[in-house]
Amino acid sequence: MGARKSRAEAGRSLRHRQSVETQLAELKHRLLEIGDLNAAGALLGWDHATYMPKCGAGARARQSATLSKLVHEKSVDPQLGKLLDALEPHAGRLPQDSDDASLIRVARRDFEKAIKVPAEYVARASAFGSTSYDAWTRARPANDFATMRPFLEMGVDLGREYAGFFAPYANIADPLIDGADEGMTTAAICSLFAALREALVPLVRAIAEQPPIDDGCLHGTFNEPAQLDFGLFVAKRIGYDLERGRLDKTHHPFCTTLSAGDVRITTRVDERDIGQSLFSILHEAGHALYEQGISSILEGTPLGSGASAGVHESQSRLWENMVGRDLAFWHHFYPALQRIFPDQLGGVTVESFYRAINKVEQSLIRTDADEVTYNLHIMMRFDLELDLLEGRLRVKDLPEAWRERMQADLGLVPPDDRDGCLQDVHWYGGAIGGGFQGYTIGNILSAQFFDAALKADPEISHEIAAGEYRRLHQWLRTHVYQYGRKFKPNELVERATGGEMSIGPYLSYLRNKYGELYRLQNI
Amino acid sequence: MGARKSRAEAGRSLRHRQSVETQLAELKHRLLEIGDLNAAGALLGWDHATYMPKCGAGARARQSATLSKLVHEKSVDPQLGKLLDALEPHAGRLPQDSDDASLIRVARRDFEKAIKVPAEYVARASAFGSTSYDAWTRARPANDFATMRPFLEMGVDLGREYAGFFAPYANIADPLIDGADEGMTTAAICSLFAALREALVPLVRAIAEQPPIDDGCLHGTFNEPAQLDFGLFVAKRIGYDLERGRLDKTHHPFCTTLSAGDVRITTRVDERDIGQSLFSILHEAGHALYEQGISSILEGTPLGSGASAGVHESQSRLWENMVGRDLAFWHHFYPALQRIFPDQLGGVTVESFYRAINKVEQSLIRTDADEVTYNLHIMMRFDLELDLLEGRLRVKDLPEAWRERMQADLGLVPPDDRDGCLQDVHWYGGAIGGGFQGYTIGNILSAQFFDAALKADPEISHEIAAGEYRRLHQWLRTHVYQYGRKFKPNELVERATGGEMSIGPYLSYLRNKYGELYRLQNI
Repeated sequence: MGARKSRAEAGRSLRHRQSVETQLAELKHRLLEIGDLNAAGALLGWDHATYMPKCGAGARARQSATLSKLVHEKSVDPQLGKLLDALEPHAGRLPQDSDDASLIRVARRDFEKAIKVPAEYVARASAFGSTSYDAWTRARPANDFATMRPFLEMGVDLGREYAGFFAPYANIADPLIDGADEGMTTAAICSLFAALREALVPLVRAIAEQPPIDDGCLHGTFNEPAQLDFGLFVAKRIGYDLERGRLDKTHHPFCTTLSAGDVRITTRVDERDIGQSLFSILHEAGHALYEQGISSILEGTPLGSGASAGVHESQSRLWENMVGRDLAFWHHFYPALQRIFPDQLGGVTVESFYRAINKVEQSLIRTDADEVTYNLHIMMRFDLELDLLEGRLRVKDLPEAWRERMQADLGLVPPDDRDGCLQDVHWYGGAIGGGFQGYTIGNILSAQFFDAALKADPEISHEIAAGEYRRLHQWLRTHVYQYGRKFKPNELVERATGGEMSIGPYLSYLRNKYGELYRLQNI
Repeated sequence: MGARKSRAEAGRSLRHRQSVETQLAELKHRLLEIGDLNAAGALLGWDHATYMPKCGAGARARQSATLSKLVHEKSVDPQLGKLLDALEPHAGRLPQDSDDASLIRVARRDFEKAIKVPAEYVARASAFGSTSYDAWTRARPANDFATMRPFLEMGVDLGREYAGFFAPYANIADPLIDGADEGMTTAAICSLFAALREALVPLVRAIAEQPPIDDGCLHGTFNEPAQLDFGLFVAKRIGYDLERGRLDKTHHPFCTTLSAGDVRITTRVDERDIGQSLFSILHEAGHALYEQGISSILEGTPLGSGASAGVHESQSRLWENMVGRDLAFWHHFYPALQRIFPDQLGGVTVESFYRAINKVEQSLIRTDADEVTYNLHIMMRFDLELDLLEGRLRVKDLPEAWRERMQADLGLVPPDDRDGCLQDVHWYGGAIGGGFQGYTIGNILSAQFFDAALKADPEISHEIAAGEYRRLHQWLRTHVYQYGRKFKPNELVERATGGEMSIGPYLSYLRNKYGELYRLQNI
């Protein structure tokens, strides 16, 4: 009897396992289909920004919206919800950090979010986003805020409407922030930014009191193909794999993942400014290293992408700034750059070049800002966006509010809206909210991860001094990249650095580097 | 009472119209969604063939298959069938050539075809096609027919299986041929090809008896960017609109439509052979002129593409051959080409160049074949394919059958399978059948359309003599392009040329041109 009973139990257990396996396979199949549609959408976007002929824009917006709509339909399919319900007990029996448990957990969170948003909203927001974006591409060069005002009003309304699907919330921006940086809240960011601001403002002031750095050597005539060749050369040297990627030109540089074997970067080139394409290539290559470093087992699942906007940005900033604006880097690569541009750089020392690429300057445009003032740009946008969402600021009063804040924070007043509140696409491409905090979180985390890597493996510093980045890359792959979206951002930070997100390493980095560059006392 | 009754009738009629309008809108919406997914699939294909990094191939095949599967699911949705049923009476009341009647008619034919093919077959054939294609890209350079044999056997089986869904048929190839060239049958093509063959064979023989043309001037060193610039220059001059298109490099040139505003061509460049890219650009630009000339009202519907493979090919061949290999064309454009390549062409007369680009030669490779022998390549493939499908020829005996037929038709025996039965992708990319007849139908129709245009508007000849192609382009747009798929191929030919498809104009064209070039008597 005992033996027969245990055979029966074994049989039930086998049937159960088979059923779990079947369910898991179906879950993965459904998620893969969503992933494939998202990848097709990403290619439509890449092509739009690189090679699409002018007259393709109208149909392209519609094709993208069709894919978004299908992705949403498949993401909220009740069958998907039933599968996740059925797999919940299985996930509970697995180690929390196993691939399958992570997949079920993350897919569940995505599903719960998606079903709160009506399909009608998704279609409306997508269609509006394309129209608004197209209007902005014309209105910004024309300095025409009046045209964009109703679009921005709609963007604010759409942001508020989106938040409404997730009520109740402590702050109306919370659901929007959580969409980009999971686990973060308005309150947490406000207190983080306040602390950072308290340290940054005196630093910016102290630098402003010093004689300005001369960055004239960056401005000359630098042949475009040579710039691109050199940019690609350094991107490869830090580990960007071109058998699984490529570089193209665009207006607004970005990185996009079409599959684990196809992670592309783009750049823009200014022949009169050698810094433009060089640092945008290093920045996007940093994003690409992250995507290329995700474990191949996670490909085609919702785990096969970065943990959050902030963590992603930490990698672009780490490679762009901690690595690419470091003196050791240029000790190694500057001779090659001088050989390419002998007339322009032959007489410029590596120290002068290093100082030029790290010049701190109060400036109007976020994307041109240096490491130190950049965060002030972000905080200002974050605060204004919050004022708009919370109804304290009306869209019609935005240009004036922008000018006042620029004057207060950076001592500059933009001469027009083109270089004022029209400068960023973020507010003109659909629902507003949650689009800015990731940049500063990224800056903070870039230093924290870099610091942790240097402490964990002292060999990294020696390699960097020799122009090698393999060990740094390896540490980041092991502690950050490989996990994709398996862990929430705060969990990932804790695992990789042994502590919570902290502004300490970032402030030390800035104080050391800029204290030396500007010969500052007592900062 | 009368007045009340007629108001009631008017009310019913209004309700009916509203309902028809609603149904028509829903039909168009559904077809547009299918069109958008097809366009996304086309972009995946274009990118695969142009810019995709090597390691993107695996995921790309899967992404394409996912889109194909979704397109099929949406194409056989029973709701679509019900809509078409409901709209049938409405279509019957409209003029047969109205846009809406044509749309309902063509959508109905597409639907009836699609529902005969099981989704499981579509997924299986798509997945097999990618695998087979990838194997072929490696096996052809390695001259490895043994590896491809099981793939080709599967391709034959899949072709037969596809045909089976459309049983009963007069010939197993009929459903496959009808898929590419609607309305054509095996019997019709066999009799068409027999008549053409009867005239071509003596022409080829007569030419072979003449002294060969020296085409040495085409073979030198021709800088790639300059070749591409010149190719694009002539493509624009014949009417290819680059605000709605672009040219990129690829291994196997093609034209693809991503929307009415985005019709792209590709080419391959051989720096040692100036004819390669030049005529492939003119060929693909011919396809693109057709797609760009379709009435914009038809965009995003199943009517917004070419009428058939054969009609499409007629336009690529018309612009490549009737226009681009004509002496008048080169009288106009040759000086520009000489200026670009003065060392290579400065001492070559336009007549010598004209003779070189029209050299007739028995050759091994279809895609390199001249206008006269090209059709013998096609007929041979068509016949062998029929033998395979009908079971008269086994795949293992194909290499030998290929060699025998080449010897018989062109007096040449390929030294290996690479330049024999492995040379065309058509048999190694999925189900076989129906892939070749369109080329020769295209040649026949190219002359028939060109002839009709010249007869209808004598000004066309004067313009051509002046290097202008606007009137020819206009005639083709009015009589062929604008209609898209509104009419079946035979109906379109009848409307445009006033008669059925006929080999007469094509034979006259070949006899006149090559009779003069080779100074032939009595042909």
